[in-house]
Amino acid sequence: MRALVLEEKGRLALRDIEMPHELGPDDVRIAIHTVGVCGSDVHYYTHGKIGHFVVNEPMVLGHEASGTVAEVGANVSHLKPGDRVCMEPGIPDPNSRASKLGIYNVDPAVRFWATPPIHGCLAPEVVHPGSYTYKLPDQVTFAEAAMVEPFAIGMQASLRAGIRPGDIAVVLGAGPIGMMTALAALAGGCAQVLVVDFAQPKLDIIGKYDGITTANLGDTTAKEAVAALTDGWGADIVFECSGAAPAVLDVPNLARPGGAAVMVGMPVEPVPMDIVGLQAKELRLETVFRYANVYDRAIALIASGKVDLKPLITATYAFEDSITAFDRAVEAKPTDVKIQIEL
Amino acid sequence: MRALVLEEKGRLALRDIEMPHELGPDDVRIAIHTVGVCGSDVHYYTHGKIGHFVVNEPMVLGHEASGTVAEVGANVSHLKPGDRVCMEPGIPDPNSRASKLGIYNVDPAVRFWATPPIHGCLAPEVVHPGSYTYKLPDQVTFAEAAMVEPFAIGMQASLRAGIRPGDIAVVLGAGPIGMMTALAALAGGCAQVLVVDFAQPKLDIIGKYDGITTANLGDTTAKEAVAALTDGWGADIVFECSGAAPAVLDVPNLARPGGAAVMVGMPVEPVPMDIVGLQAKELRLETVFRYANVYDRAIALIASGKVDLKPLITATYAFEDSITAFDRAVEAKPTDVKIQIEL
Amino acid sequence: MRALVLEEKGRLALRDIEMPHELGPDDVRIAIHTVGVCGSDVHYYTHGKIGHFVVNEPMVLGHEASGTVAEVGANVSHLKPGDRVCMEPGIPDPNSRASKLGIYNVDPAVRFWATPPIHGCLAPEVVHPGSYTYKLPDQVTFAEAAMVEPFAIGMQASLRAGIRPGDIAVVLGAGPIGMMTALAALAGGCAQVLVVDFAQPKLDIIGKYDGITTANLGDTTAKEAVAALTDGWGADIVFECSGAAPAVLDVPNLARPGGAAVMVGMPVEPVPMDIVGLQAKELRLETVFRYANVYDRAIALIASGKVDLKPLITATYAFEDSITAFDRAVEAKPTDVKIQIEL
Amino acid sequence: MRALVLEEKGRLALRDIEMPHELGPDDVRIAIHTVGVCGSDVHYYTHGKIGHFVVNEPMVLGHEASGTVAEVGANVSHLKPGDRVCMEPGIPDPNSRASKLGIYNVDPAVRFWATPPIHGCLAPEVVHPGSYTYKLPDQVTFAEAAMVEPFAIGMQASLRAGIRPGDIAVVLGAGPIGMMTALAALAGGCAQVLVVDFAQPKLDIIGKYDGITTANLGDTTAKEAVAALTDGWGADIVFECSGAAPAVLDVPNLARPGGAAVMVGMPVEPVPMDIVGLQAKELRLETVFRYANVYDRAIALIASGKVDLKPLITATYAFEDSITAFDRAVEAKPTDVKIQIEL
Repeated sequence: MRALVLEEKGRLALRDIEMPHELGPDDVRIAIHTVGVCGSDVHYYTHGKIGHFVVNEPMVLGHEASGTVAEVGANVSHLKPGDRVCMEPGIPDPNSRASKLGIYNVDPAVRFWATPPIHGCLAPEVVHPGSYTYKLPDQVTFAEAAMVEPFAIGMQASLRAGIRPGDIAVVLGAGPIGMMTALAALAGGCAQVLVVDFAQPKLDIIGKYDGITTANLGDTTAKEAVAALTDGWGADIVFECSGAAPAVLDVPNLARPGGAAVMVGMPVEPVPMDIVGLQAKELRLETVFRYANVYDRAIALIASGKVDLKPLITATYAFEDSITAFDRAVEAKPTDVKIQIEL
Repeated sequence: MRALVLEEKGRLALRDIEMPHELGPDDVRIAIHTVGVCGSDVHYYTHGKIGHFVVNEPMVLGHEASGTVAEVGANVSHLKPGDRVCMEPGIPDPNSRASKLGIYNVDPAVRFWATPPIHGCLAPEVVHPGSYTYKLPDQVTFAEAAMVEPFAIGMQASLRAGIRPGDIAVVLGAGPIGMMTALAALAGGCAQVLVVDFAQPKLDIIGKYDGITTANLGDTTAKEAVAALTDGWGADIVFECSGAAPAVLDVPNLARPGGAAVMVGMPVEPVPMDIVGLQAKELRLETVFRYANVYDRAIALIASGKVDLKPLITATYAFEDSITAFDRAVEAKPTDVKIQIEL
Repeated sequence: MRALVLEEKGRLALRDIEMPHELGPDDVRIAIHTVGVCGSDVHYYTHGKIGHFVVNEPMVLGHEASGTVAEVGANVSHLKPGDRVCMEPGIPDPNSRASKLGIYNVDPAVRFWATPPIHGCLAPEVVHPGSYTYKLPDQVTFAEAAMVEPFAIGMQASLRAGIRPGDIAVVLGAGPIGMMTALAALAGGCAQVLVVDFAQPKLDIIGKYDGITTANLGDTTAKEAVAALTDGWGADIVFECSGAAPAVLDVPNLARPGGAAVMVGMPVEPVPMDIVGLQAKELRLETVFRYANVYDRAIALIASGKVDLKPLITATYAFEDSITAFDRAVEAKPTDVKIQIEL
Repeated sequence: MRALVLEEKGRLALRDIEMPHELGPDDVRIAIHTVGVCGSDVHYYTHGKIGHFVVNEPMVLGHEASGTVAEVGANVSHLKPGDRVCMEPGIPDPNSRASKLGIYNVDPAVRFWATPPIHGCLAPEVVHPGSYTYKLPDQVTFAEAAMVEPFAIGMQASLRAGIRPGDIAVVLGAGPIGMMTALAALAGGCAQVLVVDFAQPKLDIIGKYDGITTANLGDTTAKEAVAALTDGWGADIVFECSGAAPAVLDVPNLARPGGAAVMVGMPVEPVPMDIVGLQAKELRLETVFRYANVYDRAIALIASGKVDLKPLITATYAFEDSITAFDRAVEAKPTDVKIQIEL
């Protein structure tokens, strides 16, 4: 099958490669329609590894995908050929201790698309477990459906936050995940979400949504911006989406007494935290690792119109232009949010 | 002070009456602007009692109020004369065991406006504790602010529900509280809310909101309507707002496995519940009694534009026409939601 | 294989019967050592059905079992032959929507031992999924391990209750499940547990445990007993384990404002509930259906000595005397708690 | 009144000093019986300050106290002269935003005994709000009651942890607060608690309790000890009670996937945290600041016999020997846990 293959660090090829294609009784075969380019795809391309995950042999990229069911295994009853779907890219061991607890995202045995040595989905066809394949309502386009994966991280952050109706949240960092988190938090019950960053073009994009306000950290501090929004009380929830050490250290200054912070950004190294500051307000910290049991919720919010991800799709390339798409993603403009590839 | 006085069952008078007016150090004096007419006000008027609360002597009605601060006590620092405000009508003992736990709504010592023998607020001026008086953002009108009280019940229901972002909810009953609950649940994180009732005019009003769908129980059952919306899985949350015995009995048929039901409606007598049915899906039931720590959240959602209560204000009367307003509320048309009185 | 077979209502036989014995790659083969007799086993024996579960063909009884691993499938790594184990008798579809959420107990596809038409485990040998088979620490005997299943229901009740350290609980009903619930609640964080019932012999058994007090409903009311224990404030948690209509109706009188009730008992028909009473204290109600993710916790509490179930094992019969054991269970003395059968 | 006065850093005096003694309507007057010496008392003595709390003028020390009610204000109905009591040393503004939420411990207006400039209770008599004064059951001694304050911190840690029945916990650090936390966690629902430290004498003291095991970090690592106890799965809850940077950094290695950590220890400076490590297991972090709504729970656990604090009372001094008591506390032996002073 012809696929977008990362041959090694810095070298992509659109070429034939052997991929798993046997359809088990619980599986579905899906004709891929749209695949989004994720920062992790780009990072494997430019660095050849993420942490201890190293690309040692050619690997197909891509894990944000939508498509159409072509064939279903004998045990699959909730899908049929022709159904439009999107797919959760991590496949856990369903009988593991973590999976039994409902937290299959932290099952150490998870096999995740485009995480070495597992192939991704930038190919005309994939075979996937039916129970991790989600039918799309008619009103959700393939392009939107390929946004469900990154949006799912924002959803997981919102779920872990324990948002209560009418909360005020602040999001630190206006990158793609910060934007997804802001939208998930707003749709997920917040009255208002403040997004802070240094990059004005990104703030301009996310600030267009009703209910989201922004502050440029070149003009003010996060602490001042939060205090102005909350009469000095602090935010109910701080979503740390920057991974930057100063942002992490600032968390206790932004949350209200008894509030919460969700650590979404991933600092490469351990960073200093002001534990006494967290204690003085008795804050709760949550962390996020991918997502579990989120896809149906994410699709429901998109389908009902509460979340509109279309403005975040910056450009779409043909499958044949996949390498161009990746090179664009590498040299992203400040206004680029999501690049997609259509098959 | 001239006030709307319920002299006894069935007899209202707009007349002078002695009301508390001494300003303590923690109090504020408020010039009342708008007061909503609540079903409980009407019920005291028509029946002279609710449960064991009996009107034994003349009582001022009204507890859904907004106004302007006229004077503040020595200890009040968060308000100043001229501030536009709305007021939480229940005043607990702040040192009670319940209040210390943060659940001051279930403090047995609560004194609640227009609940015998406590006077309400249908008068030009009231004195109220500053900590139960909330400043309004500029964009929230007095009329909307007088809706905060009934909306707070919907908010409390949403808070108790433990809504998780993207939940699907069903509301049983499209009366004012059912409508408030539907709006609070939607703004509070639900992807979609289904409202069911027999009264089409009411369904037409609430069904106009994006994200809310309706079903008329003359045409279908709640079970069928929920199953259609959720592919047979069931609603994440059932809000029982009708107080009708058949609706209560139906709860296990409507919720998904592991879902929740919030009992908002108040059946006069004990009603049969299908406990084994609840157990088979391991449902959680929550109950609601007024509200606590909700006003700031409610105001934030109205101010941010996530909740628009204006379409639910049916008619507004002058203070001089208060008795007419009450008589209209007694003989409410099917399209009447909220009647307000302006001072 | 020779097994205890319920031929039809009222007729047991110890005879050869065909049972599943093929070992899949995720399965283990277990030599059964001890099996407890459960009220549901007895009910199938005496009534031939429970609700809509009807014994239409011969079925092996028993679902409370411990034993020794004889053989393990290729994928099973956490067990080896010779390991002493106990088994969770319900086997869900691990890929179902409920299982993915971690609430596999409410998966409609669960296959449960000795629930028609699934055979139980009163036989020398069973084949069972490795992930529902739990290794025993050395200090836990086979007899105790066969008590894990009924204790797991008490554990599930305690988990659903959301016990907070130092809570005061009341248990309504001193049957086996009431006793299990009382012990789980006490070990699970309650400071004190009050058990109420009419049957003094049962109260005498459970009242022997430190931290458990009892009240005989022939001498006092539950309300008075709870008030005496809690200075009139009410219990943090009410465990309803009787299934009796008057007990269910009494729940609002027993809980503290903001407290919780866990419905463990199963009334055959819908029973009246005082919803307004529940609301006046804003109570939370939880329900229990079997258990999920509880076995390891239950075993840990027994192994650490925090829970001693040995005093609740009333008598032990040989496998050859299984029918005698069942007949004893049918005509249980007031002091009988658990009858076990050893193979 | 004669009291133990910290004149300035390093200088104590037992001398007459003016203290508040007017009895308001909500207050009680208490004859002090026993006061424990806390690490913070000792720290003010030896350093003259803790963080930004500086002893600028003479201050009475002591905040862990029990005594007998001598007089009650007009509004106090739950206490009467002669009642044996213990007192919560922090007095919040009951109408503050935090207090209304039930988290009065993080009310910035809290006035706390022996925290400059507020006098403590090492004096024959104090006046205290009735609602922060708790009646003792007969079986709780004055000495135990003076232990409720430090135990309350362990209780708060256990409450914030969200212990679920049968959890396995590890406590890092065997100082007085680590010991209190271990006992609260065990009584609060854990099946087993592992305490790790370098100081063997302290481990010997806490290791004597059933259900508590210990590991000396001179012999093994915390990671190895936890892995041995949990078959490599990790602890459900990590209580960080050492405040030591290496312990904080180690947290992700000790918790199970989906587990929690409670930060009780207070590192003086910000310390590095491995956020990616926390994320990989999607851990929840809770922090603790003193306590709220804990005293009644703590007293109930002591009264029921589930928690025995008596072995942790190392020595008792007469009021006249208070300075000797403090000097002993300064030069504490490894086996010293709690020093008390009797009046």
